[in-house]
Parts: sequence; C-alpha cells; structure tokens
Amino acid sequence: MPHINLPHEFPGIRSLFMFRPETAGPLNALVQTLLHDPHPTLSPGDRELIATYVSGLNNCKYCTTIHGAIAKHQLGDDGELVKQVRNDPESAPISDKLKALLKIAAKVQTGGKNVTDTDVAFARAEGATDIEIHDTVLIAAAFCMFNRYVDGLDTWQPDDDELYDKMGEQRAREGYLTKPFKVDRTEQTI
Amino acid sequence: MPHINLPHEFPGIRSLFMFRPETAGPLNALVQTLLHDPHPTLSPGDRELIATYVSGLNNCKYCTTIHGAIAKHQLGDDGELVKQVRNDPESAPISDKLKALLKIAAKVQTGGKNVTDTDVAFARAEGATDIEIHDTVLIAAAFCMFNRYVDGLDTWQPDDDELYDKMGEQRAREGYLTKPFKVDRTEQTI
Repeated sequence: MPHINLPHEFPGIRSLFMFRPETAGPLNALVQTLLHDPHPTLSPGDRELIATYVSGLNNCKYCTTIHGAIAKHQLGDDGELVKQVRNDPESAPISDKLKALLKIAAKVQTGGKNVTDTDVAFARAEGATDIEIHDTVLIAAAFCMFNRYVDGLDTWQPDDDELYDKMGEQRAREGYLTKPFKVDRTEQTI
Repeated sequence: MPHINLPHEFPGIRSLFMFRPETAGPLNALVQTLLHDPHPTLSPGDRELIATYVSGLNNCKYCTTIHGAIAKHQLGDDGELVKQVRNDPESAPISDKLKALLKIAAKVQTGGKNVTDTDVAFARAEGATDIEIHDTVLIAAAFCMFNRYVDGLDTWQPDDDELYDKMGEQRAREGYLTKPFKVDRTEQTI
C-alpha cells in the first residue's frame, strides 16, 4: 500500500510520474540522456546493465526488474546475461572495461567517497574514458535516487515477470520520453 | 584531485555541469522544481533545509555547505538555525511538521524501504500533506544522488566559507537556471 494516494493503474515510478508531473519531466529527461540517447562509446544495453546492477544492490525490485528487462531487449539477450551480471559481474561474459566500470558503480552505491584513485586507474587501464567514468558514476548515483524514490513511497511493484518484459521491450524501443505504460489492474493477479 | 579532467574554475557540481552539459540540463531543472519553484506549502527555505540535512548525513561537504548557505539566505537566518538543524533537528526552532519530514528524509538516506507506515502517519498527524511527503522523499533521494555524484568524481570543494555564502546568496536570489558561479582560483587559498 503506497504511503501517498497514487493512481492505481501505474506501477513503480510511473505512478509517481502521474502524481507529480512537474518532477517527472526532468527525471525522464535525465534517464533518457543517461541510458537511451546516443553515446560516444557505451551502448544503451551496457548503460542499462549498470542501472540494473546498482538497483539490485539497492534491493529495489521494480527498478531491477524493469531495467533488467530493458537491458535484455537492448542487448538481444535471452535474459541469461542480465542474470549473470546481477549475480556476479566478475564471471559474466562482458568486457573487462565494463567489469571495471561496474566496480566503480558498486562503490558509488555505498557512498561517493568510496570511489578511489585505484578504482579509476584500474578502469582506465582497461580502456575507460573520462566520459565513461563520469557517466558510470552518474548512472549509479541516479539509481541511488530512483531506487529510494520508488521504495521510499512504497509504490505498487507487480510480481508478473511477463508484464515487466512487455514494458521493457517498449522502453528499449521507444526510450523514456513516450507515454507511460498503463496497466489494467483487473487483469493483474496481485 | 578530481578523478576526471574537469574545468578548474568551477567548484563541486558546477565543474560536472560544465563537463557534461547534456545531463546538467535535467539535473538543474530537477533541483529548480524541487527546491526553488513555488510550492503549495513548503517554503524554498524549508526545502533547502531538507537538502542540507540529507547532504550532511551523506557527509558531502560541498552540497552541505552550499545548500546550507542557500537555506540561510532563503530563511533570512544568521546561520544559527541551519547549524541547529544540521546538528539536531529535534531541538531546533522549526515546526513539528518539518521535524517529522526531516525524520522521513533521514530514513530515505539510509534506504527507501526504511520509511515506515508509522513515520508517514506521524508526519500526517503533524499536518503533512501527500505532496509534502512526496517532495520530502524525492528531495532526500535526489541528494543521495547529488552527494554521490559530487564526491564520486572527487570534485574540487573549496574551504572558503565566504565563497559558499556568496554563491548561496546568488542561488537563493536567482534559482538554479542561471549561469554557474565561476571562481578565479588564483584568488583562492586552497
């Protein structure tokens, strides 16, 4: 039961966007720029993996599942890679550079000051650029916000994996600046 | 020494805004809406106090000092009230409603799931509305992002209190959508 009176038809952050459109605008623009817009070197799939991984560390079911589904569709994955990255990035079949960036993201999740010169030098040695390090830190920091926002107001977070997959496919295709996904709750089993 | 190559003349988040204007736009629009724009019930000063308090809990020197200075100027305070709220909101001369909202903000800082029905009921009993509870959660969550962003890239954070006071006065007066404050570092003692 959400802590405030949110529209029933929208899950997770979507209900908060309907409740407060004034802040939805900048938040959607931020996530569109960070995760979906063209990037010099990091694919949308790689950036969604960082968002998914940090949301998992913050234990936010809605964000982890929806961004995991978006990553899956962006990467043309069957879901296995996203699972592996969530469980243990070190043994996942991803580049050493992305592993080093995920290490920085994990440090950010515990607090900005925990990112060390050594973490950054390690990422650079794997080929990471300034803009990749910047965007990794900001994606990780932004999901420390989104996860707290979604959980801090106790939003409705469906259990239906197929629903997340459908929403994820739409987001991967259309990005974040399209109309929110409305769910007919009479069809939901929760 | 920042982890990436940032312009030298700008302190804290301002250097990051110059480095990556694509994300600066949405981030400035978010903080303008949350802290500066007209609000049905919470004054800009009260909202700046929430941002300052959370930044203090996250131990982010730049954000705590600059938002403390903005709060001071918004509230027409001599600096004493901001200090009291940072140290112990419970004994500070602020409303019981704001104390209850700061309690929610402190819970959000430790993780969204830590906000309980009891915390929210307590704030409601002190007169807090849905939009006040929403905005408190989002301000606290947003500063968990901003603090990690500023510290995670190890930005330059001056020691000069007078400089923060000057920047704070400008922000309180003009809001967040004006040009960033450029500092002549040859005049700095750091």
